[in-house]
Amino acid sequence: MCARDLLVENKSHMCRVILEPSGMSLEVPRGTTILEAASGAGFRIRAECGGKGLCGKCIVKVHPPEGASPPEIAESEFITQKELEAGIRLACQCRIEGFLSVEVPPESQETEEALGKIALRGRYRVDPTVKRLFLAGSGASLGDERQPSDLVEKLLERLEELGILPEPRLELGALRELSMSPSLQGDLTVICHKDRGITGIREGIKQPSLGVALDIGTTTLAAYLCDLTSGEILASAGVANPQRRFGQDVISRIGFASQGRGSLLELHREVIQGLNGLIHKCLARARAAAQQVDEVVAVGNTCMVELFSGLNPRALGAAPYLPVTRSFPDLRASELGLEISPGANVHILPVISGFVGADTVSAILADGLHNRHEITLLVDIGTNGEIVLGGRCGLWATSCATGPALEGAHISCGMRAIRGAIHRVWEHGGRLHWETLGGPEARPRGLCGSGIIDAIATLRSMGVILPSGRLKEEAPGVILDEKGIGRAFPLVGKQDTATAKDIQITLGDIRQIQLAKAALCVGIMFLMRRAGVERVDRLVLTGAFGARFDWRSAVAIGMIPQEAISGEVETMENAAGLGAVMALLDQGQRREAASLARSVKVLELAQEPDFGVEYPMAMGFPAARWEESPDLTPERDILVP
Amino acid sequence: MCARDLLVENKSHMCRVILEPSGMSLEVPRGTTILEAASGAGFRIRAECGGKGLCGKCIVKVHPPEGASPPEIAESEFITQKELEAGIRLACQCRIEGFLSVEVPPESQETEEALGKIALRGRYRVDPTVKRLFLAGSGASLGDERQPSDLVEKLLERLEELGILPEPRLELGALRELSMSPSLQGDLTVICHKDRGITGIREGIKQPSLGVALDIGTTTLAAYLCDLTSGEILASAGVANPQRRFGQDVISRIGFASQGRGSLLELHREVIQGLNGLIHKCLARARAAAQQVDEVVAVGNTCMVELFSGLNPRALGAAPYLPVTRSFPDLRASELGLEISPGANVHILPVISGFVGADTVSAILADGLHNRHEITLLVDIGTNGEIVLGGRCGLWATSCATGPALEGAHISCGMRAIRGAIHRVWEHGGRLHWETLGGPEARPRGLCGSGIIDAIATLRSMGVILPSGRLKEEAPGVILDEKGIGRAFPLVGKQDTATAKDIQITLGDIRQIQLAKAALCVGIMFLMRRAGVERVDRLVLTGAFGARFDWRSAVAIGMIPQEAISGEVETMENAAGLGAVMALLDQGQRREAASLARSVKVLELAQEPDFGVEYPMAMGFPAARWEESPDLTPERDILVP
Repeated sequence: MCARDLLVENKSHMCRVILEPSGMSLEVPRGTTILEAASGAGFRIRAECGGKGLCGKCIVKVHPPEGASPPEIAESEFITQKELEAGIRLACQCRIEGFLSVEVPPESQETEEALGKIALRGRYRVDPTVKRLFLAGSGASLGDERQPSDLVEKLLERLEELGILPEPRLELGALRELSMSPSLQGDLTVICHKDRGITGIREGIKQPSLGVALDIGTTTLAAYLCDLTSGEILASAGVANPQRRFGQDVISRIGFASQGRGSLLELHREVIQGLNGLIHKCLARARAAAQQVDEVVAVGNTCMVELFSGLNPRALGAAPYLPVTRSFPDLRASELGLEISPGANVHILPVISGFVGADTVSAILADGLHNRHEITLLVDIGTNGEIVLGGRCGLWATSCATGPALEGAHISCGMRAIRGAIHRVWEHGGRLHWETLGGPEARPRGLCGSGIIDAIATLRSMGVILPSGRLKEEAPGVILDEKGIGRAFPLVGKQDTATAKDIQITLGDIRQIQLAKAALCVGIMFLMRRAGVERVDRLVLTGAFGARFDWRSAVAIGMIPQEAISGEVETMENAAGLGAVMALLDQGQRREAASLARSVKVLELAQEPDFGVEYPMAMGFPAARWEESPDLTPERDILVP
Repeated sequence: MCARDLLVENKSHMCRVILEPSGMSLEVPRGTTILEAASGAGFRIRAECGGKGLCGKCIVKVHPPEGASPPEIAESEFITQKELEAGIRLACQCRIEGFLSVEVPPESQETEEALGKIALRGRYRVDPTVKRLFLAGSGASLGDERQPSDLVEKLLERLEELGILPEPRLELGALRELSMSPSLQGDLTVICHKDRGITGIREGIKQPSLGVALDIGTTTLAAYLCDLTSGEILASAGVANPQRRFGQDVISRIGFASQGRGSLLELHREVIQGLNGLIHKCLARARAAAQQVDEVVAVGNTCMVELFSGLNPRALGAAPYLPVTRSFPDLRASELGLEISPGANVHILPVISGFVGADTVSAILADGLHNRHEITLLVDIGTNGEIVLGGRCGLWATSCATGPALEGAHISCGMRAIRGAIHRVWEHGGRLHWETLGGPEARPRGLCGSGIIDAIATLRSMGVILPSGRLKEEAPGVILDEKGIGRAFPLVGKQDTATAKDIQITLGDIRQIQLAKAALCVGIMFLMRRAGVERVDRLVLTGAFGARFDWRSAVAIGMIPQEAISGEVETMENAAGLGAVMALLDQGQRREAASLARSVKVLELAQEPDFGVEYPMAMGFPAARWEESPDLTPERDILVP
């Protein structure tokens, strides 16, 4: 005991922290923030602002008070004095000063599994770049009369006997594996890559050749494990992109990466670790081994694929917003730290420009609009919005900064589309109704993007929200501020929520949605104008958010212009992920991707002369049916962000 | 103090060891051998048997006796009871049981620097595979009208403007470097490899392109830093191969590597670490940076280059003794862990067979015998002996197990050719004379290989050694054993040595040399016979040992047959290292190497039917001039090992 006391005294700059509900116990230096302590231990607390005290999402409860630093000014923005006294704090601001127990409520935890993005199933066309050749132990003597010789020659002789003579080049990894089985008498599997030659040699039983398609989203990572022979998707998994703790959007990640080699490496490692976790999860689900994975295809926006490859994305942060490269060389899994066969080939689909990435190329492949005669408008809305317009005659693309609001971030009661999120809102008989993800027994915790769009469209149709975006003061339910101006509209009272707090739509939330929807709407209109298209035959909605919202609500709030719904409207679950699967299975798709990356024409919205005028104009809401005509003039000044 | 006492008590299984003369202090688990403790701390104690208690070279003095385990039986083979009581122990057998001070005498220390092997100087023909292109900051605007574009295209445009358009492929490492300088406004250096494309991009001032030639010997590693533009050797360094602690010869390393992936990795890491140390030393001497090294060429025997590349050499340990591959793919420095530019190209010269390695190919390149009309006999003697015979008309090669005796190992007073080694012995006026390496003020510590050959030849010519290899009992100076048989001949009395012990030639030493010289002699004779050569126009002696001994002594003891000295005799300092330098500087040499590896015919001595008969026959010594004729018959039985 004496020794322990002394140790405590000696190490008095270290403090013990217990994270609840997991009960995880940590020892950290005095002065560490709770967010840093948790993150260092792999426990994720939401920090959409990157830990700057700006988003208020990292609320925790601490005990005892003397174990924590005094409240910061930033905390009083989100937490009342009374709550602060009760130990409610922001994990990013509160520093650990002594022994501390920290309770992290579910709404402050980063949920590991993302719903929806991984719902791909099926079988696709197969023509892989990698093939496994199985050599059953022949027992044939390898004693050789000819001199000199080597193991590689012996192996190639055996392949020749079988009538298979692939590219006779062996990579170092394959040589290393070959050197482990010098007799060549047992069963052998030889992994041959079309361009790279023999990339692996395995002893032992015959196992199917597998591949992994990776969809690297700013917000969500997804992995699909596929059988490279049958073309079947065997398993899939999704997770929040762990890079989120360095900032919610692409711009903040570029900023962080530009701080130096260390930050860049950290972002690179985070995404690789996240993907490794997904790959292991998929393998466990399919009861397969990491050594079976012979190929990987990765897609993502330009910034995400650059960070995935360890490139510094800082050129994307300033005009002319250039990617480092549009087509990536094929890599080995070991070069990136992916925990599969070290020699497995990693192919990254090409990007089109700094803001139209490999995910867009992949979504085009998935839909096949480039091979259709009709004019298709493909709208992929995740953390960013990417728009592709055209058909066989040619394609135009642009991207617009819809921002993370559509995924529930920067929204007061926003959350991602996971269990407990309100995803549908409608009016019936003069009353608001809602539905949560996870079934009726999932009590609501907040609103995901599609719920917010629905809520705003519904409140707009009920006249609670005015064309300018203001809340109508005299409408029933609207909460007023001290000046008598509408501040918020409660959707669900605290008695019905899982958090015991009202779920409400605030004026600030409506502004966030206005910014996002205007960007998308103007993007579509400019792209149609530039492409000379007046009528769209097919509107395809996809993306983490795009596939899930009610497009009628989106049209009602002016997020999608009327011109875009002149033909069919389809939704497609995660086109980017599907395209990655298709390119994994079929080398023909990679050739198409390469040709798309060169041929798609890009419109840079920010460089369009009229953009600065039309963008603020598009922020108002269209007239509801019962309204005479919207009158935006008196309030236009407050619409400019 | 109370806390510290408690810590000591808690950690009572740890013991402190002080290594003298360095004063290095270590804490190791109780029961660790002194050899393991020292080796774990990077302090090298000689252990030619790999720490098995067989070589007796790791003698140390310990204090106090209670800190060390009781003596093992193996120790009494090398240490008298009286010495054991005085604390003299074998470091590989003595386990640490408590606080212990260990004095490591100089003769038990692995000396870091190897003399001789690095003595190459000069300038060679230049046509490198890697070139640096320097782009001075032009200040030209890179604002581009065309869309889309990327940094790679911008770079290639600049190279095109300069009239240089190399292979437009960029490797990942180069892309990563390019992404660090997104403006492309500053000075840039682009590193282009003939086959691999652009492998590196550097910001900043113009620096010469450097290369490193590595000569990976079983006993000694050497590195040569060269200017790839001027062809000059800028610096060189040598060191004992740190793999020596796993065994002195190739066979024991193969055995250790075959124990499992861990052992293989350990051997690989040891040689890479040793080479990294040498490269850093060369760079420091030439005041150059690791980032300037654009290419590496490595040579060594087959086992050494396999371990260097991380291949398991176990196929070399059993018939038909096959190498994994005869030609290696080019690698990146990062794949091996070499601490230079991660993308630097590593080329390994090809091997000819399991026992005729890249060092032999390299020695052929250095001498150029393959382009000569005369018949050359090239004898490269290091830890193994490799023999090449022929000329433009064709080449034959073989290798023979001369063993490490010729480098001073397995010899009672043997040592490597470093300061204090007796390297020349001669007779004048009926008295023996000797000379040490390091000048007259270096007191002798032992005999290196050339000293042993001279000593035996001299004692033979004086009649002290009989044709059979026995010591003549009645000769003055010969020490007899209890049966009155000659046991040893002291060359230098202890009053004149640095170790205060006699330096002597024992019967066992003579047997070791007989085994080695017979192997070489029979190898040369069989090769001449197989090639149908009766007269050698040129004898070229090279290798760590081959270049340094007096060939007349070697002929006198029958190590080199009379037939081999029918023409000129030349010696060449480290032909293998020189060939590596030439192949580093000139890609033409690599093409020649590839062609040699395919065309040189190999003779496997062990498979020759008469070898088993002729080898023991060759162990006797030729008649000295004054002798009538050697009479080997009565003693032949004791010559067979």
